[in-house]
Amino acid sequence: MANITKKVSWSSRADESGATGEGTPLLNGSEQPRYSRQDSLRGRPKEIPHNEKLLSLKYESLDYDNSENQLFLEEERRMSYIGFRCLEISRWVVCGLIGFLTGLIACFIDIVVETLAGVKYLVVKENIEKFTEVGGLSISLILWAVLNSAFVMVGAVIVAFFEPIAAGSGIPQIKCYLNGVKIPRVVRLKTLVVKVGGVICSVVGGLAVGKEGPMIHSGAVVAAGVSQGRSTSLKKDFKIFEYFRRDTEKRDFVSAGAAAGVSAAFGAPVGGVLFSLEEGASFWNQMLTWRIFFASMISTFTLNFFLSIYHNNTGDLSNPGLINFGRFESDSVAYNLYEIPLFIAMGAIGGLLGALFNVLNYWLTIFRIRYVHRPCLQVMEAMLVAAVTATVSFAMIYFSNDCQPLGPEHAEEYPLQVHTHTHTQTSASPCMVLTSSLTTSSCLLCFFFFLFCADGEYNSMATAFFNTPERSVRSLFHNQPGTYNPLTLGMFTLTYFFLACWTYGLTVSAGVFIPSLLIGAAWGRLFGILLASITSSGSIWADPGKYALIGAAAQLGGIVRMTLSLTVIMVEATGNVTYGLPIMLVLMTAKIVGDYFVEGLYDIHIKLQSVPFLHWEAPATSHWLTAREVMSSPVTCFNRIEKVGTIVDVLSNTSTNHNGFPVVVHVAPGDEPAKLCGLILRSQLIVLLKHKVFVELARSRLTQRKLQLKDFRDAYPRFPPIQSIHVSQDERECMMDLTEFMNPTPYTVPQETSLPRVFKLFRALGLRHLVVVDDQNRVVGLVTRKDLARYHLGKHGLEELHLAQT
Amino acid sequence: MANITKKVSWSSRADESGATGEGTPLLNGSEQPRYSRQDSLRGRPKEIPHNEKLLSLKYESLDYDNSENQLFLEEERRMSYIGFRCLEISRWVVCGLIGFLTGLIACFIDIVVETLAGVKYLVVKENIEKFTEVGGLSISLILWAVLNSAFVMVGAVIVAFFEPIAAGSGIPQIKCYLNGVKIPRVVRLKTLVVKVGGVICSVVGGLAVGKEGPMIHSGAVVAAGVSQGRSTSLKKDFKIFEYFRRDTEKRDFVSAGAAAGVSAAFGAPVGGVLFSLEEGASFWNQMLTWRIFFASMISTFTLNFFLSIYHNNTGDLSNPGLINFGRFESDSVAYNLYEIPLFIAMGAIGGLLGALFNVLNYWLTIFRIRYVHRPCLQVMEAMLVAAVTATVSFAMIYFSNDCQPLGPEHAEEYPLQVHTHTHTQTSASPCMVLTSSLTTSSCLLCFFFFLFCADGEYNSMATAFFNTPERSVRSLFHNQPGTYNPLTLGMFTLTYFFLACWTYGLTVSAGVFIPSLLIGAAWGRLFGILLASITSSGSIWADPGKYALIGAAAQLGGIVRMTLSLTVIMVEATGNVTYGLPIMLVLMTAKIVGDYFVEGLYDIHIKLQSVPFLHWEAPATSHWLTAREVMSSPVTCFNRIEKVGTIVDVLSNTSTNHNGFPVVVHVAPGDEPAKLCGLILRSQLIVLLKHKVFVELARSRLTQRKLQLKDFRDAYPRFPPIQSIHVSQDERECMMDLTEFMNPTPYTVPQETSLPRVFKLFRALGLRHLVVVDDQNRVVGLVTRKDLARYHLGKHGLEELHLAQT
Repeated sequence: MANITKKVSWSSRADESGATGEGTPLLNGSEQPRYSRQDSLRGRPKEIPHNEKLLSLKYESLDYDNSENQLFLEEERRMSYIGFRCLEISRWVVCGLIGFLTGLIACFIDIVVETLAGVKYLVVKENIEKFTEVGGLSISLILWAVLNSAFVMVGAVIVAFFEPIAAGSGIPQIKCYLNGVKIPRVVRLKTLVVKVGGVICSVVGGLAVGKEGPMIHSGAVVAAGVSQGRSTSLKKDFKIFEYFRRDTEKRDFVSAGAAAGVSAAFGAPVGGVLFSLEEGASFWNQMLTWRIFFASMISTFTLNFFLSIYHNNTGDLSNPGLINFGRFESDSVAYNLYEIPLFIAMGAIGGLLGALFNVLNYWLTIFRIRYVHRPCLQVMEAMLVAAVTATVSFAMIYFSNDCQPLGPEHAEEYPLQVHTHTHTQTSASPCMVLTSSLTTSSCLLCFFFFLFCADGEYNSMATAFFNTPERSVRSLFHNQPGTYNPLTLGMFTLTYFFLACWTYGLTVSAGVFIPSLLIGAAWGRLFGILLASITSSGSIWADPGKYALIGAAAQLGGIVRMTLSLTVIMVEATGNVTYGLPIMLVLMTAKIVGDYFVEGLYDIHIKLQSVPFLHWEAPATSHWLTAREVMSSPVTCFNRIEKVGTIVDVLSNTSTNHNGFPVVVHVAPGDEPAKLCGLILRSQLIVLLKHKVFVELARSRLTQRKLQLKDFRDAYPRFPPIQSIHVSQDERECMMDLTEFMNPTPYTVPQETSLPRVFKLFRALGLRHLVVVDDQNRVVGLVTRKDLARYHLGKHGLEELHLAQT
Repeated sequence: MANITKKVSWSSRADESGATGEGTPLLNGSEQPRYSRQDSLRGRPKEIPHNEKLLSLKYESLDYDNSENQLFLEEERRMSYIGFRCLEISRWVVCGLIGFLTGLIACFIDIVVETLAGVKYLVVKENIEKFTEVGGLSISLILWAVLNSAFVMVGAVIVAFFEPIAAGSGIPQIKCYLNGVKIPRVVRLKTLVVKVGGVICSVVGGLAVGKEGPMIHSGAVVAAGVSQGRSTSLKKDFKIFEYFRRDTEKRDFVSAGAAAGVSAAFGAPVGGVLFSLEEGASFWNQMLTWRIFFASMISTFTLNFFLSIYHNNTGDLSNPGLINFGRFESDSVAYNLYEIPLFIAMGAIGGLLGALFNVLNYWLTIFRIRYVHRPCLQVMEAMLVAAVTATVSFAMIYFSNDCQPLGPEHAEEYPLQVHTHTHTQTSASPCMVLTSSLTTSSCLLCFFFFLFCADGEYNSMATAFFNTPERSVRSLFHNQPGTYNPLTLGMFTLTYFFLACWTYGLTVSAGVFIPSLLIGAAWGRLFGILLASITSSGSIWADPGKYALIGAAAQLGGIVRMTLSLTVIMVEATGNVTYGLPIMLVLMTAKIVGDYFVEGLYDIHIKLQSVPFLHWEAPATSHWLTAREVMSSPVTCFNRIEKVGTIVDVLSNTSTNHNGFPVVVHVAPGDEPAKLCGLILRSQLIVLLKHKVFVELARSRLTQRKLQLKDFRDAYPRFPPIQSIHVSQDERECMMDLTEFMNPTPYTVPQETSLPRVFKLFRALGLRHLVVVDDQNRVVGLVTRKDLARYHLGKHGLEELHLAQT
């Protein structure tokens, strides 16, 4: 039944000292070593690194389980009830701050994008006015492409050269962080700055991207920063929130930040909460969820409030979120029972198209890993994409001859007014809609709209291409039937599909949510139009906007495969609960169909990074396995009173890089294995070594200050590497008493425990190390995240991934 | 700091055999016995039973942790991947069914209430026409009161005599069930029938109640029934869903049912999911949540669909839920920043009023426990309340002289049309709104409205009193400013507050949600009107409906103290995310203010039932305590191969009533304590004894069928009591081998583990028993739900509740 592939083992040992795998067993010579090793550093690898078949050991896990050592318990016991109340209040304050700052950032991005885009249009407009007799349009169009490429270049340069982790939407990274994997540098201030700058550049540069995905990452960084009350990058410590300087608290705040990001991006506070929970939470805690919700609410509110001021409409709080789908009025019959099969069919199409998107992007990513890994090449690729996007758009507009008459509804709103965007404005002229988003630019774009068309007509392809994607989505949802010609929509879907697919994975900060929605809305509307032309019955089929909405949901679901939170986000963004059921059915179908072919886009990228990601449950057919098979064994243990030299040697051993060490007591000398009495972490040992907490020194220097929890917090989160700590030869002979610092009550399981049971314990408690003991409480093994993440359900039953040091 | 009150111990032993406390330690003579005992059965207790200071031992816990014994593992290992997929699909099917049936029940209740109310009005109308000359109005009014009392009597009789557990809203019971406490008979078919009948009677009887709360209970019962594929009451086994016959699966489905109930009641599928999670979930599982959401969606959809058919408006799916707040349009400025402090002040008022409500209801409940415990008395009290409610309403209408002119908007809709309720109809004449809900009755009620008023006027007090509460809430939210006179609102609030407070806790099935909303909406509107009259600035303050909404939220929050799910329910019911932030702030304030005085209404009732309810986290200052202090000790253990006589004796010992027994191995004869090797449950032992799985018999009868998991499932959930199993004297000498049936890998903790850590493990994994072992893996104690629920944070720090056998 369960067909476990044999472990493939190389006997090499990694020699890079940078890698810090966690809790891997000390390998004695005879034991099977489980490391494969890529020698990509010595030149091009012979074979493509099948990253998705490997699990990297370079990622550490978060210590979500508190180390309840004596210091911790003493501190907790010293604290009064009032103290706990104050802590609780400061948690709320931090969440409020997170929401506020995240909202501000969203607001900042929105305003800067509008302003820069306005400047860009202005420049092109002047150019057109100047060269309109000399070189014709072509010069202006080249200028346009060059400007776009320039913006994208700036965005790509800061990402590629300063902070590569800021590339993409950041959602895979945040998913990993919430799952419990520490992705290096993902929540640093520098990342935030690059991310914000990058996303502005790529959106202004006209790429097929959205600014919504990066908001989630930005919110998470804000949360990680604010909750610590200091910035390591800026070397500034505000001496507040010191209690929160540990992984447990920090991860909780990061959940709140991610939720606030979603909330600001889509105006969906509940969706944000559910996103955080869907991706991150293991143990659902009521107060935590409530705080996350608070952060989300504040974030939406802040964004809304400041944007309303910016649009001179202070106090209009009805437009939450960077994107707003406009209100689907439910006064009329929204949909009929017999339409549900159609929606499900659209879900299946979305699943198929999504799978195609993901497969293409997967190949592209493999190609990029192989050939486009130098920053210069990455920047050049980004510029190329920007130029191609501009060119293709123009070509499409030129060759399409979809000229729609300017109806009376356009005429009456002529001459162009600069509107602030309210969702009532859904049937306005495309030109006006566009210019309304560019408050500083004037009528240039109308020029494009009327390009190649007779008087009194406008080019609907141009509408689809030159609007901001957010506005295009809304036009597709709400414009009158007949606004778009089926051929235009078909062509647009096709082009935009490939452009978006090419764009995702570029070394720029950008999200895939909006492009997905746009592709889906385009083919969904096409579907609706075709349906209306096939069936002769008019009224109910007449609204292609409904199908655009369903198509958008299907396409997005097919690509990212989120389910619960996405339904709620869509429902909140449409502001209409009536479409809840169809959207849910569509997302479910898209997920089922898509999963048959390939995983979701984010999961693909997580796998390509070889991140040890833990899913919700152990693979269904893994009841065969027990802790005995899963655990790493033998384990490096320390004695309760251990020689400093031994500790330093173990920590310095780069081939093992353990992060957690069981502390044992030998009842009789030499009996192996020994009885478990605690668990100590690498980070704790490092701090102990740094402060030279040696038994001998404590005796000689009685006045020496006792080590406190504060010392551990001060070193958090960037514990120095063992190499930076100098231990003299004399000191190596000293002893360290670990009793006070180890966690005396680590969770344990017997060897016979089944994998699903181990998995559940691990996931529910957010563990990092789980000690496996025999029936006499003696340490026989250690289970870590990688040991569990190794097993996954493949085509041929249960499969095992290999572990790699890189 | 942590001021732990001394355990008070009585030395009595309970002698009732019905009580089945769980996992309590076997008490040796010298150990301190921890049972207090009420002798209420032998007459009136001398002292009021301070139930809230006791924890009852009569409630069992759910086995949410799978017993992974050999049988279970064999079955899981036999199952192929396809098998797991099929199971997953049937889970979805079950959730779909749960949603469908819950929606149908909601629809049934709604339609029957409308019809019966129509009949009632018709009878009174005929009476009025007949006696209008003879006795004047008084006879008709008496008839009205008598009819109401009659309906309430029927409702009270079925509840009091047939199924007392169906009384009230059922939310406290479902909270307990989701928390992991098995409340007897709470999810039986009979309970559902009585609940549905009872709620219809009490609503038709004109009590100050809502039909929304009971929907949650109904949904839970439906879920428990459908998921088991059989009905024990009807003695019908469909032989399907046999895999789901265990507590783990059943509780998951009950969560879905509760969510479906919320969803049907308020048209709030997301709110339903969050309700289930807020109340129940410990470990958040993505697939489970997704299924719960599916059930909620189907439930809303079903209700909506069938109601639309009933209202001859097939396919209009825009009215989900039994109650609908009407749409708060957000075209205009919804609220301003400077209104937020006002909202918070309203939240504080709501908290105060809620606390007052709860305190009054608490005293009333104590009174009822003491004096009104006979079914006859309970029925009489219910009838009295019905009569008083009718009388008070009349008196209020008579003495109030709030006659409002029938405006043009009323005139134009005259003569009365029968409208189906759509939310656009919020400004319609009160009379018309009322009759629209009573399709069979005609203009009788207009009579009441125009009672004691001049021509062309109507009585607004009558509007508030005689509308269905759902409609009154909507009128308060949406009617034009000036519809209600401040004095009317004040009087109405006052009367309704006391009526609702008296009504909650009666022996009828009814919810407190709608009355709370109504009280809050009334004083909220009053607040808005007063505010508008104080401030001279017109436009922004002009809408008292907004304040009615905030008041409703504040009052409901002050009474029930739900937070996250209530916010989402309110937001979904208003269909406008803009009010999310104020509603959340209001609910938070109401909770904080209310909690200062007294707990939430549901929690009070749970405490008065002495249910061992586990909160989310251990009390803040409980780091002082370790497993050693918390655990029950010594523990009754069994050997791996145990004598039948011993097992029967232990199980029959009514003074202990353990439900879980560690299985141990003695390494050397006579060494105590012995090494842990497994855990076996009372229910498993009962099945083993029933099937006579004795070592000797197995040897003699080799053909005997091996016991399978199916045998355990067939006995679930009503395992026979030990008394019903006959074991002969010969058989008592046989041996039983527990190896195959015990859970070989129970979770364990060392004695030094702190209470918060034990608590977290317990709560996150939904445990029932946690074995405490020493450093050699020998059993030293057992922690159960009651051991943890005992500790709570009182006024004077950490307090300990007493355990009581009743």
